[in-house]
Amino acid sequence: MNNKLSYLTPGPTQINTVAQQAYTEALSSGIASISHRGEKFQKINLATKKALRELMSIPNEYRIFWLSSGTEAWERIIENGVTEFSHHFVNGAFSERFYKISLELSRKASKSEVAWFETFSGNEVVPEKAELIALTHNETSTGVMLDKSFISAVAARYPDKLIAVDMVSSAPYADLPWQNIDYAFFSVQKFFGMPAGLGALIVSPRALEKSKEVQKKKGSTGSYHSFNSLVSFDDKNETPATPNVTAIYVLGKVSQAMLENGIEQIRKETDENAAKVYAYLEKNNLAKPAVIKNRSATVLCLEDLSNLRATLEASNIIIGSGYGAYSKSHVRIANFWQMNILKCCDFRSN
Amino acid sequence: MNNKLSYLTPGPTQINTVAQQAYTEALSSGIASISHRGEKFQKINLATKKALRELMSIPNEYRIFWLSSGTEAWERIIENGVTEFSHHFVNGAFSERFYKISLELSRKASKSEVAWFETFSGNEVVPEKAELIALTHNETSTGVMLDKSFISAVAARYPDKLIAVDMVSSAPYADLPWQNIDYAFFSVQKFFGMPAGLGALIVSPRALEKSKEVQKKKGSTGSYHSFNSLVSFDDKNETPATPNVTAIYVLGKVSQAMLENGIEQIRKETDENAAKVYAYLEKNNLAKPAVIKNRSATVLCLEDLSNLRATLEASNIIIGSGYGAYSKSHVRIANFWQMNILKCCDFRSN
Repeated sequence: MNNKLSYLTPGPTQINTVAQQAYTEALSSGIASISHRGEKFQKINLATKKALRELMSIPNEYRIFWLSSGTEAWERIIENGVTEFSHHFVNGAFSERFYKISLELSRKASKSEVAWFETFSGNEVVPEKAELIALTHNETSTGVMLDKSFISAVAARYPDKLIAVDMVSSAPYADLPWQNIDYAFFSVQKFFGMPAGLGALIVSPRALEKSKEVQKKKGSTGSYHSFNSLVSFDDKNETPATPNVTAIYVLGKVSQAMLENGIEQIRKETDENAAKVYAYLEKNNLAKPAVIKNRSATVLCLEDLSNLRATLEASNIIIGSGYGAYSKSHVRIANFWQMNILKCCDFRSN
Repeated sequence: MNNKLSYLTPGPTQINTVAQQAYTEALSSGIASISHRGEKFQKINLATKKALRELMSIPNEYRIFWLSSGTEAWERIIENGVTEFSHHFVNGAFSERFYKISLELSRKASKSEVAWFETFSGNEVVPEKAELIALTHNETSTGVMLDKSFISAVAARYPDKLIAVDMVSSAPYADLPWQNIDYAFFSVQKFFGMPAGLGALIVSPRALEKSKEVQKKKGSTGSYHSFNSLVSFDDKNETPATPNVTAIYVLGKVSQAMLENGIEQIRKETDENAAKVYAYLEKNNLAKPAVIKNRSATVLCLEDLSNLRATLEASNIIIGSGYGAYSKSHVRIANFWQMNILKCCDFRSN
């Protein structure tokens, strides 16, 4: 393997320079060795949560829980948020997987489904019995990114239902309407540009109340990562199990660097760079955007017209294949922080 | 924080030189960026499992699953191995926690309990209805380490029950009787000397069969980390969720280095160094071993007679406090691979 390669892949992805430096520092300074019970860790944990809260405008009354992955977040949300029935907006492989996890955990579930690469009409009807509505802000398999206003509108139509938002491949680029959201979650190996091994789950006070109701009705909301257990340790800025201490530290450093950069500036550059790459590849008949409406700025999904993936690889630029059945016909290009996605326009002059 | 400190703590702990080098390499070479779907990761995963299998003499027909922690292993074992009832040999905080996790997951459970720092008689009776017996090879809270022959004897008395062994703080030092064991699990931040963020669960064919029965009877064995899901991805040398790719790579490198060192040599040195430190501290009235029978070689638990923890810290040697109620009266000294635990005898000459 070669460090000259650029991984413009939808995650795991290119490790950004801040993450790499912070990791190296954590390993050599002893941070990777400190106890997860005690003041040193508590301070690191609090600093990271504080930076993340500021970066993503997470309300103070919302909890930030550390999990191992976005996938774990799906499981913990269903275990703690659904007694009987969840409803899922499904527009790709990951929103579908959330739906299936509800079934695997012996809940009932329904879905509002649209074809891959398409988006929702806004007229979807959610069954009355649904306790929770699951939305995927950025569907990593198809590159469809929902509008903030769409999420708010769904929440406004169903004020009594809990709203869960998958922002795995769009946090912290995503500017979410927190007042309408009960759960949001992400992994660090996407926009944050870190090695995989840490997930975050953000939870509203209403969702914490709901977990008590689920505990009462079902007799269990899981064990060490039940919300009850997570809260009791979070009160001390600790975690129920030994967490990925190093990654929590590094996430704090990356979040601080993003804050210095300015999240609005990061969003603006992300949008501009995505627009340039979509336009360049289309104009030159190299690839055609797969998504018409709600095109993602962080995971660009395109129909490959020119063997683009292999051509870019010859220039040391690794991009993702299409997902699942589209692995050969499509490509996915990640556009995360500090990534020079414009390389995808420059490669022919190399 | 200071890299001159030695962390002789029971985990997280001192990062060994092999782990540190492998981490640095993984971050700079692109290994931390590769996809977890595809040949590159499959090769790394297979290489690590192969090295671990050889190092720990894990039979070929046993599966090695990657989890996020030893704590997660407790949950997955109960979810996949117990329909109604588990039995737990409890001799400290971690064996007690396994028992409680069974209750939290709506199972019934019983225990054979002895006082902290003590060990079992061998005459314990397990209720007939127990489907699984949980043993803790090395109780990290008390420093009691069970004999291999004790584990085999329990298994021989109850051949129809599944046997789960917590080896969180003793793998791969522990030489386990695999033919008698259905589950064994560990975390990498103990004897392997790596940063926290990865756990391994080793599972017998009989335990896989049992998970199918649990699925049939209870309708669920979890979601992405059900054994059914773990097996289907392990068949491709992949994992259901994006794993801690870097840690899997590093664990392979540490295991290979241990193989080169020879596991028997590592066990011998571990035993010798533990004996020297116990003897030195006792002889000089600095600390008194807390455990009489089944004294651990990897986590030395002692009653502190001399303010030992603070004294050692003044020599840049960090050791653990006692656990829970013993946090002030006791100390715990980790004796993991590449750790120079003999520093605990040398500090007064510094």
